[in-house]
Order: sequence, then structure tokens, then C-alpha cells
Amino acid sequence: MDMEKIQTIIKEFSTKRDWEKFHNPKNLAMALSVEASELVEIFQWLDLEQAQNLNSDKKTHAKEEIADIAVYLIRMCMKLDIDLEEAIIEKMKKNEKKYPLLDENGKKIDYGKKK
Amino acid sequence: MDMEKIQTIIKEFSTKRDWEKFHNPKNLAMALSVEASELVEIFQWLDLEQAQNLNSDKKTHAKEEIADIAVYLIRMCMKLDIDLEEAIIEKMKKNEKKYPLLDENGKKIDYGKKK
Amino acid sequence: MDMEKIQTIIKEFSTKRDWEKFHNPKNLAMALSVEASELVEIFQWLDLEQAQNLNSDKKTHAKEEIADIAVYLIRMCMKLDIDLEEAIIEKMKKNEKKYPLLDENGKKIDYGKKK
Amino acid sequence: MDMEKIQTIIKEFSTKRDWEKFHNPKNLAMALSVEASELVEIFQWLDLEQAQNLNSDKKTHAKEEIADIAVYLIRMCMKLDIDLEEAIIEKMKKNEKKYPLLDENGKKIDYGKKK
Repeated sequence: MDMEKIQTIIKEFSTKRDWEKFHNPKNLAMALSVEASELVEIFQWLDLEQAQNLNSDKKTHAKEEIADIAVYLIRMCMKLDIDLEEAIIEKMKKNEKKYPLLDENGKKIDYGKKK
Repeated sequence: MDMEKIQTIIKEFSTKRDWEKFHNPKNLAMALSVEASELVEIFQWLDLEQAQNLNSDKKTHAKEEIADIAVYLIRMCMKLDIDLEEAIIEKMKKNEKKYPLLDENGKKIDYGKKK
Repeated sequence: MDMEKIQTIIKEFSTKRDWEKFHNPKNLAMALSVEASELVEIFQWLDLEQAQNLNSDKKTHAKEEIADIAVYLIRMCMKLDIDLEEAIIEKMKKNEKKYPLLDENGKKIDYGKKK
Repeated sequence: MDMEKIQTIIKEFSTKRDWEKFHNPKNLAMALSVEASELVEIFQWLDLEQAQNLNSDKKTHAKEEIADIAVYLIRMCMKLDIDLEEAIIEKMKKNEKKYPLLDENGKKIDYGKKK
């Protein structure tokens, strides 16, 4: 993903509309959670099988909501000076430690050996 | 952002733990919105100035929550077979049309000329 | 439900702790949505059958999250000077019109006759 | 608040529309959080002063979203067999212990004496 290109598109969009003044991190966190709920709304009355087999309209809708979430997420990273790729990789390393793999004897599996 | 690398990390993490079975799009939408709220929680009692000047602890916390959101967002894209970069670019084009720029006479500004 | 009693408990709790200053409607809306997500979190990896048969621990947890949501909801009503009972009854009347009942010929059912 | 009356209105509304089948606690938690976000949306770009001085349209809108949240919350209580008033009172007692009042010497204030 060309993050620099996308950041430029997002930044120009809000600068041209004089919307930067609204993009306080508090407000952006709210907007992000509102978009996340718009994605939830698509799935709220579906059972698990229906959720796995969205029709074309619902899939297009989901794609747009996902894009909205991503835009606010990237906007937030720009405001807080966070490198998203680095943040993800660091967090996944932390998750690996938090949820260690166990072998059948309940011992931690040696990742190196496994591969 | 090296999306392929990140997708591999995310995919391997849940496959090794046998968590794939939980990653129905309905469940992922819920998890994503829960993580978005954990980001909101950091900001809920701050005023707008405080939100713009997070201390180091809160910034580290925000970075982790942003990573959690991104991970579920990318997981969702993988499940729904969505190209996130394409989704963002398409949505931003739609937003450009939805919120047209106006000049001082209320006429749409010609982007080409502006640049 | 003795709303006056509950409002007094809630009001005294935050006054004694000098938390009134944080209870701006914007902040309360955020806090309410955060608590709503904590309720969602209980259900996020459960299938529909499991969700209908919570174990005792999860039910106690859900009860607490529901209480937290209610407290912020009532707090919000106090701040915006809204009568919750009236708000619910008015909204349900609006919903009745928005989602009319149809008989088997696709005609609206006369509520009066039905009863 | 006449909870029995409101429960009857809510129950009849969904029974008549054959919507009971959708009202699994998992789905209701999602719907509740979606409505909470619709309340957040009203406040997301407002500063704290504007949030405290909603215009008439925005206040009416907030009242409706608050009602929607309350309806799903009460629906949830009915499904999980929870007495909302009792849940609130128990939770507030727990909060009193979790956030004890301190006097100027950092000692816990005796509630009885204070009154």
C-alpha cells in the first residue's frame, strides 16, 4: 500500500475544505468509532452463515465503510505522528508473547523449531 | 506499507492458535468496533487541548489501540477479499464528488486550474 | 423504576468526587459508547446459541455493563433535560409509523381491530 | 418510569413484526452499540461549549437516539432476565467502593458522618 500517496490524498481533501480544524485526535477517535459502527450495522441482524456470504450490495457497502475507517485511522496516525506499519508489527510481536503457543504437553512451542 | 508481509503475520498468528474459526466477518466487525472504543476511551475525559498533547504513556497506549484496529481491519479485508488501498482511493473519489469544493461565488472550483 | 432515586444516587456520586466538570454531553456520549462496546466484547466470539446461554460469570459481567450504560444514559438525560420515559414512548410511536404492520394483502393492519 | 408499560410496548412492537427471532443477545448488543454511535455522531465535530448548547434540531435528534439506546437496553434486560433498577443500584454500590472518597489527609471519608 502506497501510504505516502494515500496520506497526500487524505491531507489535501481536508485542507482544501478547511476541515483540518475539526481533526482533533478526540474528534477523530469519535469519528472512527462511528464508522466502525456503520460496519457493524451491516452485520447486526445476520446470522454467521449470512455474514460469510454477503450479497453484492452489502459487500460494496462494507467496502465503503472499511475505507472510511481506514481514512480516519490514517488521519489519526498523521495527527499523532505514528507509523502505522511499525505500530502493527510491534503490536503483533507483543501479541505473540501475550498469547504463547503451547505444545500438547502445555509447553511453549519453539517457533524456530516449528518452522 | 508492505501489506503482503503484514497479512502474512496476521494470518499466521491466528492459524497457529486455531483462531480462524472465530474470524467470521460479523465477529470481526464487533471486535473492530470494540478496539475503536478502546481508542475513544483514552480521549473521553480530555479536553481538546489535552487531546492534542498526549503524554508519552497515553501516546504509547493510543499507538497500540490503533494497531489493534488496523489488524482487525486488514483481517476483515482478507475475509471479504477487499483490496484496502483500492477501497480507500475509490472512497476518496466518491467523497470528492459528495463534498464538492466551491469558489467564493458558490461555483465548483476546477481542481485542475487550482493546481 | 424509581427514576428520581436513581438520578439522586448518580448525581451525588459524581458531585462528591468533583466529576461533574467532566460530564459534558460530548464526553458522556463517548463514555456511553465505550460501555456499549464493553457489552459487545462479551458476545464478540460467541455463536448465537452460546449468546443465548451465557454462563453465570458472563451474565454477571453483562449485568454490570448494562448498568454502566444505563448510568451514562440517565446522566445524559439529566444534562440535556430529557425525560427518558417520554422519549421512549414518543420514539416507539414514531417507529410504529415507520414500520407499519401489513396484512396478508399488503394492506396496513388496523391496530384497533386487531385488539 | 413505568418499566412494565414500556416493556409491554417494546415486546408487542417486535412480536407483531415477527422480529423476535432477530433479538438474540449478541445481535442486540451490536444494535445497542450502533445506536450509541449515532448519539456520538451528533457530538463528534462540536467543541465542548457547543456540545453543552445544542440547538433545537440537534436536541430532538439526541432525544431520539437516546430513546433508541434505551429500547435496546431494556430489550437486552428482558432477554437476559435482568432487573435494570437493581442492576444500576448494585453497580453504583460497587462504584462507591471502587472510587472511595478521600478527605484532605487522604483518608477515606465516612459517608455517614458527611451527611
